[in-house]
Amino acid sequence: MPGLIGAIRDYYGKIGVELEKEDILITTGGSEALLLTFLCIMDPYTEVIVPEPYYPNYTTFVHAAGGRIRALPTRPEEGYRYADRKRIESLITKNTRAIMITNPGNPTGVVLSQEEMRMIADIAKEHDLFLICDEVYREFCYDDKFGVPSMGKFRDIDENLVIVDSVSKRFSACGARVGCVVTRNKELQAALLKMCQSRLSVATIDQIGAEALYSVDHEFFRKSKAEYRKRRDLVVSMLRQIPGVQVEEPMGAFYVMAGLPVDDADKFQRWLLEEFDHEGDTVMFAPGAPFYETPGKGINEVRIAYVLDCKDLARAMELLGRGIECYRQQVMRL
Amino acid sequence: MPGLIGAIRDYYGKIGVELEKEDILITTGGSEALLLTFLCIMDPYTEVIVPEPYYPNYTTFVHAAGGRIRALPTRPEEGYRYADRKRIESLITKNTRAIMITNPGNPTGVVLSQEEMRMIADIAKEHDLFLICDEVYREFCYDDKFGVPSMGKFRDIDENLVIVDSVSKRFSACGARVGCVVTRNKELQAALLKMCQSRLSVATIDQIGAEALYSVDHEFFRKSKAEYRKRRDLVVSMLRQIPGVQVEEPMGAFYVMAGLPVDDADKFQRWLLEEFDHEGDTVMFAPGAPFYETPGKGINEVRIAYVLDCKDLARAMELLGRGIECYRQQVMRL
Repeated sequence: MPGLIGAIRDYYGKIGVELEKEDILITTGGSEALLLTFLCIMDPYTEVIVPEPYYPNYTTFVHAAGGRIRALPTRPEEGYRYADRKRIESLITKNTRAIMITNPGNPTGVVLSQEEMRMIADIAKEHDLFLICDEVYREFCYDDKFGVPSMGKFRDIDENLVIVDSVSKRFSACGARVGCVVTRNKELQAALLKMCQSRLSVATIDQIGAEALYSVDHEFFRKSKAEYRKRRDLVVSMLRQIPGVQVEEPMGAFYVMAGLPVDDADKFQRWLLEEFDHEGDTVMFAPGAPFYETPGKGINEVRIAYVLDCKDLARAMELLGRGIECYRQQVMRL
Repeated sequence: MPGLIGAIRDYYGKIGVELEKEDILITTGGSEALLLTFLCIMDPYTEVIVPEPYYPNYTTFVHAAGGRIRALPTRPEEGYRYADRKRIESLITKNTRAIMITNPGNPTGVVLSQEEMRMIADIAKEHDLFLICDEVYREFCYDDKFGVPSMGKFRDIDENLVIVDSVSKRFSACGARVGCVVTRNKELQAALLKMCQSRLSVATIDQIGAEALYSVDHEFFRKSKAEYRKRRDLVVSMLRQIPGVQVEEPMGAFYVMAGLPVDDADKFQRWLLEEFDHEGDTVMFAPGAPFYETPGKGINEVRIAYVLDCKDLARAMELLGRGIECYRQQVMRL
């Protein structure tokens, strides 16, 4: 047995990212990888640029480290794409410490092209910033042109790059709490190692289990991706049939952001849970506003996680359509 | 099954500490309980008063939260006792946010008397400070007069008290990474809960295992304590037979601090590992200086963890005696 770090190193080798063992530190999920990274690189009042909408817990981790998030705005009608050099560079100040991206994106499903990845890597390098890439969804890219993307393939940004990773999405093992932080920057490695040593170890049994997970073959990923692609296609096509819903087809991860024809998605969600049912069933999603740093944005948007089987997803989308119709009549009086 | 939080609540009830379920938050070991607590209560340049010597990782957690440690000095010849109202109050400034103690103590084995606990609780209350008590060793008190001590029994310091706890010492389960943070302060509960939610959960399998650990009966603790008492007695009596060693009998935990007749315990440890052997064996302890915040203190002290069986401990103490004699002749030229 190669040990968990050895198994992760082998996995990275197979996707074209050559790592040394010391480039990998095991963490209690991707969450701890993020918290420790921010604790190591942020000082009070320093900033990290993050395209919004983004995973809301980033805010907690950045704030815990005394820093703040500078949101890079995107637009639903542009499919939430953010790889625009001018827009990114306009946010860089003397307080900027890092650019952070999630690729493929949560909650947007945006996947960067090779050219976009290269351009963002160039910005980080030219401005001497850390580039933190949350790549936990990298196996979930639904167009084969993307392959299994990782910023770790660019060897000229070794000093800038921090990859955040986890077993939970890759192997559907979300209670396992095993992730890692990957960097080739020796100074950051030393700081992260000190933080890791201070909290002793990651849960032992989970580490042994995670090592075994990395022994699955290519067929597991192929089947898993095919299943999620089917779910995405179903959800997107059913969302498009609901009048007034705005949705772009996500290219990766297992989420889709959609704009609903309601006044407030949070209020609508509460109403679905408390007032609505169809033959005893209702439906739940994540309201969009918490995914935004900018106040007032995402009010009528929702994130739908297509992590149920197709039969349940079809019923959920049917319930969403019925719920919207009923809510617009009964609550919005339209 | 009462669930892990229910099991912990039942355990606390048995030792005389009445808790509500919401007073308990499960953490990835006592380490995460400490880190999250400091992240919630410290701001840049705030201070926490800690008797030294103390567990060195406290420093990393406090620094990660932007704060600093104000060391409360103790003296080996006083058995490292620190419960002195004047000495503690002399360290309180407008920047002081908390007093932190480990009871029973690591590395000193100091156990506070009921009167000392009450006095420290009073100081925290009078000065409106958090009182953070790391009580992971509370079952390991070798004089029956101490019982199973916990600051949680004082109900007038609900707003001040934070208890840090863990299964690792109590059940000899040190790779399990399940602990908890206990507080009845509602505002702090809300902040800690937010931090806990941001990093999702503690490893699921370990939580299930920990729940089962809490079902052990009183006999387990009785046997465990009797074994450690035997080990302590053996180590202390053998240390006292080594010429020049200064040691006081520790009252709790499973460590003893000792002053050795060497110039530098760290240098001596390296020499033991690299240059010394007796019939192929050598011995290893933790050098004392890293347990101190004050530079220059603890240079000739060591922490010995009596976590081996008596036969191995006896051999280790024999090796330590031989090592000291040999080192003083060969290296110190005495």
